[in-house]
Amino acid sequence: MIQVVRQGGEVARDFVKRFRVRSEAAGKKVDAAVTEILEAVKHHGDEAVRAYTLQFDGALPESVEIDRPQMEQLAKSCDPSFLSALQKAAANIENFHARQKQQSWLEPRADGVIMGQRIRGLHRVGLYVPGGTAAYPSSVLMNAIPAKIAGVEELVMVTPPGKDGRPNPNILAAALTAGIDRVFLVGGAQAVAALAYGTETIPKVDKIVGPGNIYVATAKRQLYGIVDIDMIAGPSEILVLADETAKPAYLAADLMSQAEHDRMASAILLTTSEQIADETVKELYRQIEALSRKEIIEESLDRFGAVILCDNMEEAVSFANELAPEHLEVCAENPMEYIGKIDNAGSVFLGNFSPEPLGDYFAGPNHVLPTSGTARFFSPLSVDSFLKKSSFIYYTKEALQPVSADIMKLAETEGLTAHANSIQVRQ
Amino acid sequence: MIQVVRQGGEVARDFVKRFRVRSEAAGKKVDAAVTEILEAVKHHGDEAVRAYTLQFDGALPESVEIDRPQMEQLAKSCDPSFLSALQKAAANIENFHARQKQQSWLEPRADGVIMGQRIRGLHRVGLYVPGGTAAYPSSVLMNAIPAKIAGVEELVMVTPPGKDGRPNPNILAAALTAGIDRVFLVGGAQAVAALAYGTETIPKVDKIVGPGNIYVATAKRQLYGIVDIDMIAGPSEILVLADETAKPAYLAADLMSQAEHDRMASAILLTTSEQIADETVKELYRQIEALSRKEIIEESLDRFGAVILCDNMEEAVSFANELAPEHLEVCAENPMEYIGKIDNAGSVFLGNFSPEPLGDYFAGPNHVLPTSGTARFFSPLSVDSFLKKSSFIYYTKEALQPVSADIMKLAETEGLTAHANSIQVRQ
Repeated sequence: MIQVVRQGGEVARDFVKRFRVRSEAAGKKVDAAVTEILEAVKHHGDEAVRAYTLQFDGALPESVEIDRPQMEQLAKSCDPSFLSALQKAAANIENFHARQKQQSWLEPRADGVIMGQRIRGLHRVGLYVPGGTAAYPSSVLMNAIPAKIAGVEELVMVTPPGKDGRPNPNILAAALTAGIDRVFLVGGAQAVAALAYGTETIPKVDKIVGPGNIYVATAKRQLYGIVDIDMIAGPSEILVLADETAKPAYLAADLMSQAEHDRMASAILLTTSEQIADETVKELYRQIEALSRKEIIEESLDRFGAVILCDNMEEAVSFANELAPEHLEVCAENPMEYIGKIDNAGSVFLGNFSPEPLGDYFAGPNHVLPTSGTARFFSPLSVDSFLKKSSFIYYTKEALQPVSADIMKLAETEGLTAHANSIQVRQ
Repeated sequence: MIQVVRQGGEVARDFVKRFRVRSEAAGKKVDAAVTEILEAVKHHGDEAVRAYTLQFDGALPESVEIDRPQMEQLAKSCDPSFLSALQKAAANIENFHARQKQQSWLEPRADGVIMGQRIRGLHRVGLYVPGGTAAYPSSVLMNAIPAKIAGVEELVMVTPPGKDGRPNPNILAAALTAGIDRVFLVGGAQAVAALAYGTETIPKVDKIVGPGNIYVATAKRQLYGIVDIDMIAGPSEILVLADETAKPAYLAADLMSQAEHDRMASAILLTTSEQIADETVKELYRQIEALSRKEIIEESLDRFGAVILCDNMEEAVSFANELAPEHLEVCAENPMEYIGKIDNAGSVFLGNFSPEPLGDYFAGPNHVLPTSGTARFFSPLSVDSFLKKSSFIYYTKEALQPVSADIMKLAETEGLTAHANSIQVRQ
């Protein structure tokens, strides 16, 4: 299921190579199929959306838009303890993300010059929510709440109908909790296209966020520039740093919590203790028996799981920074001292009582995180992701005059005489 | 050269269509050629870079890296008044962007929970600077200074050698001013590939920024995800809002200052005054005669220039928001009252003495701006563009216990029992 290897050795190097190329690239067939869907929806709107829904989902929902009374009706059918947990999670997510909000600012100068930056929410955002077993209410909260805090005026959700042509009530409960404005029962690349171009019933948005299958991801990638998109999420991953004070039962449970996501997920333990390594492997075998997604866990641990022995925590931290994991747990004696050492990770979980699922569902920070080593340069989804900025410049005649010669010199050096002329005419 | 049309009319609608599809898409041939270059550099490093440099630039520079003494030597050969203007511009850019810097934060709670966000600069960034007539020192400042403020540890610049195998001294002066750490005389898609993958001499970076021709832009697009990139810049554009108090001579000069960039550039005047419209057209004919890039200006105004009459300023503002221009000038009696009305624009220039070239070169806000209507959702290049964030979560046993049931409920509702198990083992 998983092997214990030494960092720096050949097997560890092979593992890193396997880990790195794990992302699934869309083949040419998927690319071409998606291009065709996008073109059809662009030119034929709702008619094309309906045709693809019939083709891919097998049935048309009674009504494409779920109105508010319907949402409320369906949400009432949910388990009350689920609804209560959802409310608490939403409050935590709201509290954390409220700290991220940036404000417009201006810098007025004594000579009359005023410059600054206007920061405002995007006008309209689309949120894709997968159907079937990947319909996660937590994802609705994580994508929608930062958008609301950013001041997005309208949040539009699309989600494929179930096999019975009906929506998933848990998803609608999350949509209500998160303040989604409109919900459409449409899925796949056709839903993404409808959001990007607008149709007779589905409004055109400025940005599309949310996870989806390879068709959804490819549609988003192809439409980037027509609309903004969030990251293209790769398979999930967790890396756990453990010193000799860590608890093998916790480590094993946390590794499997990510391994269960899908067969491409990766779970890596870096530890300085051979004993911790061996006991964690034993715990994996022990705990997996009770888990409903045992087969998926076995396969992902087989392919992308590793327990790697490091000489010391410095080596482990440096290796973790090289891998730049989506989730990073620090199970060490003084976990806080690692915050400033971990340069590349989406979300960092410190200590023995901060398991990754706490962050997935509840604590407040976002669970939409950079995968596949992109934490080297990408950041978690945040309020920033839903803001746009414009700078503004106001100069007076008196302020422009003394700097005119400098501006003209720079323009002329670049050979742009019409730029210089625009300053010259104002003298 | 340019026509006066009425907003809402057929000609104006045709113009909008032409304006929107102006972006140059790379053909399949360019795409395939770039893919080949990227693969070659990935697998053969410097050897491939040298071969392509010989093939495309016609000669190999004496040394690929320009060291600091060489940079200083070359900068000394520049016009002193250019160097002085460059220093002043750099100081303004630094002052404006310093306001954008975000700080790491944490939120400690009474129950021992600590959560927060670490914000730090990217480790290493690559800056592409075109050669030939598009070698703009101002671009070096605008791309490099925000990166330095963000705390980027190493800034690597690549730029193609001139026909004599030598670098452009003005570019090197700007590189010194902006604090670039290393400079390599390499251009084209091979330079972009070298930055993304690293070679024996050129270090691998985390993000690539800077303008370039269609090969450079295509290379950046293909490498997105391997590294981060800035926007893919489309042709430049300016939209001027003018009421009856505007000065036709200024308007004409400002329209041409963008029209001179290239044959795809667009310049649009929206005005409420027929007299202002007519006089601006006369000014265009009068002023163009003295401009060195007259031919380019004529062609871009012919194809993508327009003077559009609006019934009132509200209509003009609403049309401007629809077009979402890169640069927007407000030449109106009370320009400040427009700041809060302009939702979609990269940079806004207020009043009769804030011409667009003031922002291009000198005032301080960035000149790397969203083009082709993407100001609907994209923002100017900023310090943010060079930061990455990680969230962190620290919970205690006492803080985890009371929320465990909620977390497990959410995990179980999503069918993720290994997530629930990671909380369960800690009870």
